Amino acid sequence: MMPAWLDIGRPKLDDLMAGLLVSALLLPQSLAYALLAGLPPLAGVMASLLPLLAYALIGSSTTLAVGPVAVLALMIGEAVTTLGPAFGVTPMTVALLLSTEIALLLLGAVLLRLDALGALLSAPVMQGFVSGSALAIAGGQVGPLLGLQWAPERLWPRADALTTGFGLVALALLVAARQWGVRGLQGIGLGPVRAQRLARMVPLLLVVLTIGAVAWLQARGQAADLALAGRIAFGDVAGPAALASAPLGLWRAALPAALMIALVGYVSSLGVAQGLGARRNERVQPRRELLGLAAANGVAALSGGMPIAGSFSRSGLVAEAGARTRWTGVFMALAFALWVGLGAQWLALLPQAVLAATIIVAVLPMAKLGGLRRAWRYSRSEAALMAGVTVAVPLLGVEMALGLGVLGAVALLLQQTARPHWAEVGRLPGTELFRNTKRFTVERLPAVLTIRVDEGLRFTNALWIRDVLGAELAARPEVRHLVLMMSGVNDIDLSGLEALTQLARDLRAQGLQLHLSELKGPVADRLSAAGLHDWLPGVVFRTQAEAWAALQAEGKEPGSHWVSP
Amino acid sequence: MMPAWLDIGRPKLDDLMAGLLVSALLLPQSLAYALLAGLPPLAGVMASLLPLLAYALIGSSTTLAVGPVAVLALMIGEAVTTLGPAFGVTPMTVALLLSTEIALLLLGAVLLRLDALGALLSAPVMQGFVSGSALAIAGGQVGPLLGLQWAPERLWPRADALTTGFGLVALALLVAARQWGVRGLQGIGLGPVRAQRLARMVPLLLVVLTIGAVAWLQARGQAADLALAGRIAFGDVAGPAALASAPLGLWRAALPAALMIALVGYVSSLGVAQGLGARRNERVQPRRELLGLAAANGVAALSGGMPIAGSFSRSGLVAEAGARTRWTGVFMALAFALWVGLGAQWLALLPQAVLAATIIVAVLPMAKLGGLRRAWRYSRSEAALMAGVTVAVPLLGVEMALGLGVLGAVALLLQQTARPHWAEVGRLPGTELFRNTKRFTVERLPAVLTIRVDEGLRFTNALWIRDVLGAELAARPEVRHLVLMMSGVNDIDLSGLEALTQLARDLRAQGLQLHLSELKGPVADRLSAAGLHDWLPGVVFRTQAEAWAALQAEGKEPGSHWVSP
Repeated sequence: MMPAWLDIGRPKLDDLMAGLLVSALLLPQSLAYALLAGLPPLAGVMASLLPLLAYALIGSSTTLAVGPVAVLALMIGEAVTTLGPAFGVTPMTVALLLSTEIALLLLGAVLLRLDALGALLSAPVMQGFVSGSALAIAGGQVGPLLGLQWAPERLWPRADALTTGFGLVALALLVAARQWGVRGLQGIGLGPVRAQRLARMVPLLLVVLTIGAVAWLQARGQAADLALAGRIAFGDVAGPAALASAPLGLWRAALPAALMIALVGYVSSLGVAQGLGARRNERVQPRRELLGLAAANGVAALSGGMPIAGSFSRSGLVAEAGARTRWTGVFMALAFALWVGLGAQWLALLPQAVLAATIIVAVLPMAKLGGLRRAWRYSRSEAALMAGVTVAVPLLGVEMALGLGVLGAVALLLQQTARPHWAEVGRLPGTELFRNTKRFTVERLPAVLTIRVDEGLRFTNALWIRDVLGAELAARPEVRHLVLMMSGVNDIDLSGLEALTQLARDLRAQGLQLHLSELKGPVADRLSAAGLHDWLPGVVFRTQAEAWAALQAEGKEPGSHWVSP
Repeated sequence: MMPAWLDIGRPKLDDLMAGLLVSALLLPQSLAYALLAGLPPLAGVMASLLPLLAYALIGSSTTLAVGPVAVLALMIGEAVTTLGPAFGVTPMTVALLLSTEIALLLLGAVLLRLDALGALLSAPVMQGFVSGSALAIAGGQVGPLLGLQWAPERLWPRADALTTGFGLVALALLVAARQWGVRGLQGIGLGPVRAQRLARMVPLLLVVLTIGAVAWLQARGQAADLALAGRIAFGDVAGPAALASAPLGLWRAALPAALMIALVGYVSSLGVAQGLGARRNERVQPRRELLGLAAANGVAALSGGMPIAGSFSRSGLVAEAGARTRWTGVFMALAFALWVGLGAQWLALLPQAVLAATIIVAVLPMAKLGGLRRAWRYSRSEAALMAGVTVAVPLLGVEMALGLGVLGAVALLLQQTARPHWAEVGRLPGTELFRNTKRFTVERLPAVLTIRVDEGLRFTNALWIRDVLGAELAARPEVRHLVLMMSGVNDIDLSGLEALTQLARDLRAQGLQLHLSELKGPVADRLSAAGLHDWLPGVVFRTQAEAWAALQAEGKEPGSHWVSP
């Protein structure tokens, strides 16, 4: 019997329509992204067939369209360019090896319950990385789009007129279809649903038209300079045999790239799936997604496909087309197989300039530089990180950019916890509320200094806290009681515990008392277990209001003791 | 005119006595730690003269006794052993270069206000590192203590009887003086103060006695096999000239070691100074300490001394002896100069076995394995980190151990923030207090789910929060309002902001409302600036009590809106 979670439900007509529609975009993208990664077209074709079935069976999202994606293609391309020559193997071998390692890494993450590791790619790092990748990819496609050729004796490249023509017409057609397609088709009398469907078929139409044009030009002997996609050589399908021949050193050398690709693939897929899923009240399960991507990449490796993930553009289209079950992916793969089967020998005639136009149109919307402006308004340091990662992708390469981004995010977190926000608080008159003395007009008791620390007491701020509190107390010689209001202290690590006990000892030596209030349950439990009442000279108050009442009753008489309630 | 902070006050008689007393320990330790670092005795002697004056002028602690210290000697020894042969320079050149780089790094830290970087060495890492170093040092001294000699044809080393005799007698004398010295001397009629002072002079007495014994043995031709400290060759004082001849590559190669030594030296010195200072109500200023250590290391480099820091054992002795101003350091240096001046040629006769005994007695109390047990009770993960660092020092070396320790501490912090504590809260009957439903008997409103998140919303938990809240809501289909009680949310980074806006969007799509309560001032400011009221479908309540009142009044009717107060 099949486990319940493998049951993908009954196929709906909507799923068939959505699969058909999106396959029209998948066809040129699969070829384009293979070329972008420096691989033969076959690597993209094989990544668009069986992996889709594997994900449909095991994944959890009804909208995620897996297959070759642009950002991964850029990363794969970098790895292929460096590792292939170094180990004397074909690009295809490197790609299959990456697919295998990615599948194993994702599977390992499932087994070790490491799905939370995706958090390492913070929002600014991921957004900066995607923007930078989009710019790097689009920039790299200008050459193929215009058929630019560099000659050693010239400073500027020469553009091939025929290629430029194909490239710019394709670009114009795709942009026009996206911007005005639906409205234009409605203008000539089509219903809204039909107009939208037809506009979505434009990529397929473009493929058919340009292949026809190239065939006509070739028959007249006029397409010699036009770079074409090239033959999809099904006889070359590689698989386990290619992997077996890969040298052992390559497996180790490819691991960092595989790790990065797996991380980016997982986080971006999860983001897309959660974003689209939320609109339709669908709960995406991170661990199921990990498993689905692991299976899809494993199947890609076995069937000769490049590494895969969820595509931004195609998944959006799936959602828009009203897909309802994961059968959509099955239909998409079948339709794709149909197009390729019908026209394999014709697809070889597709000009690379047209594929370049497809890539540019797909990736440019991913470069969200407006996000940078919004980020700047919220957090300058995180916006700087985002901008840094964006710029680093074209300048330093994807792996370096990503590594620096993760390090930068961790450094920012350490810095934030190192200098926490703190405030002296007083009582809002007539209430039991305690607020920052700098923001509100509040009452204070003369012999009492109440400080609210808005951060866990951890090693990053353990030295700082002693210093700050010492300076505050030195400025207020009349104070006899220091109350730490712990409502914002979510955690105290060993360094924080040591700082706190030393603070208590310091204060006791000066004839002052240290009290705590509003301790959170888990923090109080651990402090008690560590013998809090042995070293705390003062009282642990349940609430700040109780601390106020007790210390007010005591007046200004220094040094008397209470027993903790 | 001298700035006020350079004024070290008038010398007191207590300072003179303390300086004299501690110089008796400084004499053998300076020679021993130089040998431990693989340097000629002169490197320890020069590190115990002028650097003490520089620190007295610039530092801020009245108790910190700077000079050669054991843990640093171990680190210097590792650097000297690897870098010296690699660059074909003498150990002394490496040591001076380290002193210079440490001085510059500390100075740079002052200028860039990086004193908080000391926080990188968390309490468990520092404690584990010191314990591990103590064990490694003590273990390494067993050979010199017993005069062990390995012969290739034997499995076990041979001990030299004369050396073993010197070593064990010295060890016994030092341990006895520390354990029973004061009581014993009081037993034979001395007053407590005089007894304590005399007991503290035992290391000096030991030096004099063993030198006498060696001289007597040498005169009879019986000390040939005894390894001695060796001549203090004042003619060899190195300085800027030695540095100028160092190859440029060495400067770069020594930088990681210099960085680690600077960090350990600063953090351990600050810890000692703060610990001893607190007992006498003295505020130690981290930045002044940085500057004082920078100056002292710079002076060490210029005058031919090894890198220095504050010593655990000698600083404790300074405090115990009742020093009152930083003149103590000046007197200590002067007394030290006197001993060395009087007996330089005699000090060459000091057996290495006696120095080994001095080292063992100084470092073993630093291996606080009891701290590990206490740490285990408080936090198993941090205790494991501490134990790991302790074991790593002898096994992997100081740099690796320290690097792994810092990485481990950061990983633990990330892990803690990644899976924060959270609780559903309800109202304590008859109060306005809201507590964890699992810990207290509280009231809940049927259509309202109130969750208190006890951690900043940061990239480490941004994926998690959406998942956890989604699961809670899925289990409670009757809920119409989700209130996030933000009293423990000290910070929201961009990833957290994105998670929150997406959560609001998800909930709106499901006909649920998201409200916030008890926002902290700085967090509320930033959320408002980021357009909180544009995307939040619900209300921002000042307190949880107000949220309760408003949602109770609304009853179970779903979907109505309030305007934020």
